Amino acid sequence: MVKLEELAGKCGEWLRGSGPHSDIVVSSRIRLARNVADFPFMRKCTGLDRASIERSLRERLGQIAGWENVSYINVNSLDETDRQFLVERQLISRELADADGSRGVLVDAGEKFAVMMNEEDHLRIQVMHSGLDLQGAWERINLLDDQIEARATYAFHERLGYLTACPTNVGTGMRVSVMLHMPALVLTRHLERVLRSLHRISLAVRGLYGEGSQAMGDFYQISNQITLGKSESELIAQVAEVAEMLIEYERKARTYLVENGLKELHDRVSRAFGVLCTAQTISSEETMSLLSSVRMGVNLGLIRDVEIPTVNKLFIHTQPAHLQKLRGSPLKTADRNIERALYLKDHLRQRPQDEHPENN
Amino acid sequence: MVKLEELAGKCGEWLRGSGPHSDIVVSSRIRLARNVADFPFMRKCTGLDRASIERSLRERLGQIAGWENVSYINVNSLDETDRQFLVERQLISRELADADGSRGVLVDAGEKFAVMMNEEDHLRIQVMHSGLDLQGAWERINLLDDQIEARATYAFHERLGYLTACPTNVGTGMRVSVMLHMPALVLTRHLERVLRSLHRISLAVRGLYGEGSQAMGDFYQISNQITLGKSESELIAQVAEVAEMLIEYERKARTYLVENGLKELHDRVSRAFGVLCTAQTISSEETMSLLSSVRMGVNLGLIRDVEIPTVNKLFIHTQPAHLQKLRGSPLKTADRNIERALYLKDHLRQRPQDEHPENN
Repeated sequence: MVKLEELAGKCGEWLRGSGPHSDIVVSSRIRLARNVADFPFMRKCTGLDRASIERSLRERLGQIAGWENVSYINVNSLDETDRQFLVERQLISRELADADGSRGVLVDAGEKFAVMMNEEDHLRIQVMHSGLDLQGAWERINLLDDQIEARATYAFHERLGYLTACPTNVGTGMRVSVMLHMPALVLTRHLERVLRSLHRISLAVRGLYGEGSQAMGDFYQISNQITLGKSESELIAQVAEVAEMLIEYERKARTYLVENGLKELHDRVSRAFGVLCTAQTISSEETMSLLSSVRMGVNLGLIRDVEIPTVNKLFIHTQPAHLQKLRGSPLKTADRNIERALYLKDHLRQRPQDEHPENN
Repeated sequence: MVKLEELAGKCGEWLRGSGPHSDIVVSSRIRLARNVADFPFMRKCTGLDRASIERSLRERLGQIAGWENVSYINVNSLDETDRQFLVERQLISRELADADGSRGVLVDAGEKFAVMMNEEDHLRIQVMHSGLDLQGAWERINLLDDQIEARATYAFHERLGYLTACPTNVGTGMRVSVMLHMPALVLTRHLERVLRSLHRISLAVRGLYGEGSQAMGDFYQISNQITLGKSESELIAQVAEVAEMLIEYERKARTYLVENGLKELHDRVSRAFGVLCTAQTISSEETMSLLSSVRMGVNLGLIRDVEIPTVNKLFIHTQPAHLQKLRGSPLKTADRNIERALYLKDHLRQRPQDEHPENN
C-alpha cells in the first residue's frame, strides 16, 4: 500500500500547471460511474456484499497489465485526517471519505487516474489532466474503461446504457468537468452573470471541493449535469466549448484590469504576496484568497520568481489534512494556522523577489 | 539660506530614536513664547511692522556667539510644499506656515532648536530632544532664552511674567510637551480612559501634527495647558510625571499583549511589515498605521533588521511634502501614493529580514 506521507510532498498530475490554457484552467477531469453486473447496487448491499465487491474488484483489477504502478488504498482503514487528505488531493470524493464499510481507491503513481470502489457506484473511474485537455483525458479514461471491462462485466442496458445507482448518472455514466481559476471575473463582478447563463444550459458549477463547496480561491468547476441522450463526445464538446468561452471572458477581464487599473491590480497581488510571506498565523480561507491573487499576478507577470506549479501546490498543501501530513502530526486549528504561515513562508521565499518589475 | 533639499534626507534630533524610554517617547519638546518690548504685539502690526520685526530680530539674533551653524529660513518666500515640509519636520507650526507677510525661522544644523519669528508672538523658541529628556531640553532652551534676551528686551510684567499675544500663554510663556508612541494602549482599548484622566488635570493631548490633528500612527503629544501661576520647573515636573505614568501604562499594555496574544501580535506587526514592503501604492494614513505596528514590533524584538531611527524617519519622510522634496518634483496624490510605496520598499528592504525569530 502506498504511504500517504510519500504522496503528501508530491504534486499530482492535475497540479502540474502545464497543458493548454494552464494560466486559467487548472485541470480537466472525466469520471465514469460503473457497476458490475454480478453484485447488487450499493444501496442494496450488506456489509458482507461490500466486502465481497471490494475483494473481487481488487483481485480482478490487480491483474490488469500495465497497472504495476497502481496502488490500492484501503479507505476504510484510514483515520479521518488521512481520508480528508485524499479528498483534498481530489483522489477520492467526500462521499467515499464519509461512507462506511469496505471501500477503497486505486491510484496510479502519477495520480493521473484513480478508481474508487464502493462509492455510490461499485466503480468510479476518474482521470485528471493538467490544463484544458479533455481529449487527452477522454482517451486515457476510455482505455481504462476498456481494461476494466475486460475483467468485469458492467451492468449495461441496451437502450439506457450504463446503469447507475442514481438515475442522473444513467446513460454514459460520465461527468466531464473543467476547473477554472477566474479571479478577474470575480474582481470585475462579471462572474455572477456568467454563472447564471451556465445554469440555463444545464451545466453545474461548483467550487474546488465539489458540490456545496464554496468557490474559494476563485476556483470554479464546471461540469455536465446530463448523462443520458448524448454521446460521450457530445458531452465533452459541450463542456470544452463552455470552458473556452469562460477562458475568453476571464482573459478579457484580465486585460480590462491591466488596462484600466494596472497599479491597483499590481498593488493587490503584490500585497497578497507580502502577507503570505509575513503572516505568522493564517486561515485556510485567507490563504486561498491571497494565493488566488498571487496566481493571477504570476500569470500576468506582476510577480516574478514564483512559479505556477508552486502556487498550485500551495493551494493543496495548505489544506488542513495536507498540512498535518506534511508536518507529521495532528494539529488543532490554531496550530494549523501557525504551521500554514510557516509553510507558506518557506515555500514562497526560496528566491528573493524582484519587486520592481516596472520601476523604470 | 539652508537648502531644504539638504534637510530632507537628514534626520532631525527628535527622530534620532535615542534618549531615555525612546521605545515609547519619541521626543521631548519645550517652547517659549516671547515678545520684544519695542514692537506692538503681532495682532496690532501692519505689514511694515512685521517686516521691521523680522529684520530687527534677524540682525540681533544673527550676532549671537555660537550660532554660526544656525540658518535662517524666510518662510514668506517659500511655496506651499516647502512650508508644509517644515511643518512635517516640526520646525515651524501650521500657524506660521499659513500666516501672511514677513516671517521666518532660525534652525540650527542639528535641528535641536528652532526660533520662529512673527508667529502668534514675535518669537517662539523651541527645543526638541530625542526620548524623554525634558531636563536636557530645559537646560538648552534656558540658555537660548538668555542668549536671545541679551540681544532683545522682552515684554515682561513684574507680576504676570512674560506677556504674550494670547492670555493662555502669559506667565512662563512655556509649553512643555512629550510625544509618545502608544500602540499597545490603543490596541487594548485603554487609551480613551487614560486620555480622559489627562484632561481632568489640565493637560492637552494632540496628535503628531498639533492641535486638531488626528492621532495618526498612535502618536500622542501631551502638554501643559496652564502657563501662569506655576514655575517652569513645576510645569516640567508635571508633564514629566504624567509622561512616566503613560510610559508605564504603555509598557504594561505591551506586556499584556505579549503574554496574552504573542502570536496575534507577531502576526499583526509582521504583516504590517510585509505590506509596507510589497504595496505598490499606499496612502499616508495607511503608512502611518502600519509603521506604528512595525515600530512596536521592532521594540518588542518581533521584527529584526530594521532599526527605530529608520522607522522614525519613515514616518516623516513619507509625509506628502517630504516625499516631494525627496523625489525632487511636485506629485499629485495618486503619484505620491506610488512614490511612497517605492520609498518604503527601498528603505525597509535594505537587509534581508529574518522572519523566524521564534521558529525553534
